[in-house]
Amino acid sequence: MISYDALKDLTKDILIHLGYRPDAAEETARVLVEADARGVASHGVARLAFYESNLQGGFVDLQADPEIVHETPLSLTIDGHGGVGPTVSRFAMNRCLEKARAVGAGLAAVRNSNHYGMAGLWAEEAAAEGMIGMAFTNTRCCSIVTFGKRSILGTNPIAVAIPAGENPFLLDMATTTVAHGKLEVCDRRNREMPLGWAVDEKGRGTTDAHLAVSNFKKGIPFGGQLFLGGEGETLGGHKGYGLALLVELLCSGLSLGAASAHTFEKKGEPSGITHFFAAFRLDLFGKREEIEAHIASILDEIRHSDLAEGAERIYVHGEKERESRLCALKEGIELDDATKELLGAYGRRFGLSVTV
Amino acid sequence: MISYDALKDLTKDILIHLGYRPDAAEETARVLVEADARGVASHGVARLAFYESNLQGGFVDLQADPEIVHETPLSLTIDGHGGVGPTVSRFAMNRCLEKARAVGAGLAAVRNSNHYGMAGLWAEEAAAEGMIGMAFTNTRCCSIVTFGKRSILGTNPIAVAIPAGENPFLLDMATTTVAHGKLEVCDRRNREMPLGWAVDEKGRGTTDAHLAVSNFKKGIPFGGQLFLGGEGETLGGHKGYGLALLVELLCSGLSLGAASAHTFEKKGEPSGITHFFAAFRLDLFGKREEIEAHIASILDEIRHSDLAEGAERIYVHGEKERESRLCALKEGIELDDATKELLGAYGRRFGLSVTV
Repeated sequence: MISYDALKDLTKDILIHLGYRPDAAEETARVLVEADARGVASHGVARLAFYESNLQGGFVDLQADPEIVHETPLSLTIDGHGGVGPTVSRFAMNRCLEKARAVGAGLAAVRNSNHYGMAGLWAEEAAAEGMIGMAFTNTRCCSIVTFGKRSILGTNPIAVAIPAGENPFLLDMATTTVAHGKLEVCDRRNREMPLGWAVDEKGRGTTDAHLAVSNFKKGIPFGGQLFLGGEGETLGGHKGYGLALLVELLCSGLSLGAASAHTFEKKGEPSGITHFFAAFRLDLFGKREEIEAHIASILDEIRHSDLAEGAERIYVHGEKERESRLCALKEGIELDDATKELLGAYGRRFGLSVTV
Repeated sequence: MISYDALKDLTKDILIHLGYRPDAAEETARVLVEADARGVASHGVARLAFYESNLQGGFVDLQADPEIVHETPLSLTIDGHGGVGPTVSRFAMNRCLEKARAVGAGLAAVRNSNHYGMAGLWAEEAAAEGMIGMAFTNTRCCSIVTFGKRSILGTNPIAVAIPAGENPFLLDMATTTVAHGKLEVCDRRNREMPLGWAVDEKGRGTTDAHLAVSNFKKGIPFGGQLFLGGEGETLGGHKGYGLALLVELLCSGLSLGAASAHTFEKKGEPSGITHFFAAFRLDLFGKREEIEAHIASILDEIRHSDLAEGAERIYVHGEKERESRLCALKEGIELDDATKELLGAYGRRFGLSVTV
């Protein structure tokens, strides 16, 4: 168990030793530790290893600053020049919020960035100010489209936050059936995956987690994860694929950036990851307080609706993570063994004291 | 087989005989026939029966005009006063487009409307002008949330159109696994549904189409359709539920309108259906032509990607329907027998000549 602040300080120190500038280390540490605090370990400090491998591959330029390449009163397009994802995203989201405060809405398309952590963190900043917030991103490609077999899209998450009094709605979801980390868990534990998570090199559904994970690691271009709705059209797989493609077009399309299929193409060149952010003031549509109260009442009715047989609770999106965060702030964050080892190794390497 | 124009004229005549004002009949006929032309029969002229039953139930006020109740340079909130869905939507989308032409973006939240037809039709109007278009709506409730058993949300479709040269991207999807019509087909044909489409009154997955359809018809409040990702969380059912809830909050939340659970509550009162529309000019982010060309290239790469074993073609969203429409304009529209009978019956009732 480690306190939120101690984990953040440690993460920041490690990032500085890896060469991050202090502001980038601060922002990145916040993003990683927030994910752990919310119980989203897949986007937590365990990602330090991935961030370091991106540095080693030359996919991130620690000295780059984002540049505005196009701007209107309510929008902008940003070239991240291969900089640190959370730094570029901080820059973009701040400008969306400024524009929304001034004219009601702010939208930003971003190219040449890098992994920005848990998407929902960016979206929820808007909700705290009485705005709808949106944050989308493409990712390294790992997923196939309906009737295809080549890994050509990323997990392309969607995050939308909507203010609702004390408990905002926060949808934060990969458009794939599950996060890649869930395949890895099945692989490590010698368990079959449910059908609907991934396909083999021929594009046919598979439950073999070893195969799916090893194909991905080897960089085999065929096979990969399925989008929400699974294989084919019977359970709506073409809809999940459509959502992922929507994210792709808003991120890489609008910014003239790299599509998922062309990110991480060449060592020594920026990964090319793209994002899309937006903020819309609730009072575009009426009185903020009235709208927030109405939204809260809709969410409450669902929360307190009748449970399915055997079910314990109906959640509204963002609630589980909010409760986990409150608990983590009070009691500390429990990391898994692999993450503790990772931090311990960084500690020994950089002469940092690590107590997790 | 009937020509597009003949079917539209006939549909308009029937609507006028049902009491629609000529402009409302024209807009509604267009919306219904466009759906048939695109092969989306679930939203085609067969809906005349549903529209008439809404009139009989007093859910639609044929004399109502929409009213703007809140407005800013880039947004508005509209009270449809229970008017005809396509009329209210025409009014709302026109104002979104005007605002987007003037300031770059236009957004509208709409309450007290009615069924507006196929969502994608409204979204694609923006794409034709070099804008991203969005159209969401809630619907009569028919679906359960993850871990719940009460029918509390609608099919809550999402439609987003993005310009891409001659072949725009048009995602138009119910957030449920499938459209309600697919359950009815299984029911009529005595076939089991795949697991993942619906739950029974206890909230547990069922393949019994007779049960699902009869529960819905009887107005039993428990059981209903599942959202994209199906039952529980294993295949991402909470994500589909989240998308439906997002649609609900943008439509009924922002407009202070009725949530799906409170639409069609009382005969003689407006159904309370709510919508959300938006348009965003592509040149908010750079040169329209450059962005459209880049988006088209991303779509092309996916279209021409490697096929899964046994698959024939990879589609981009909107393509199937566009091809069906071109064919229908040239060769006419083939309606199913039930729809032909419905039109024949209207013809006899109103003294109209019907050749389908």
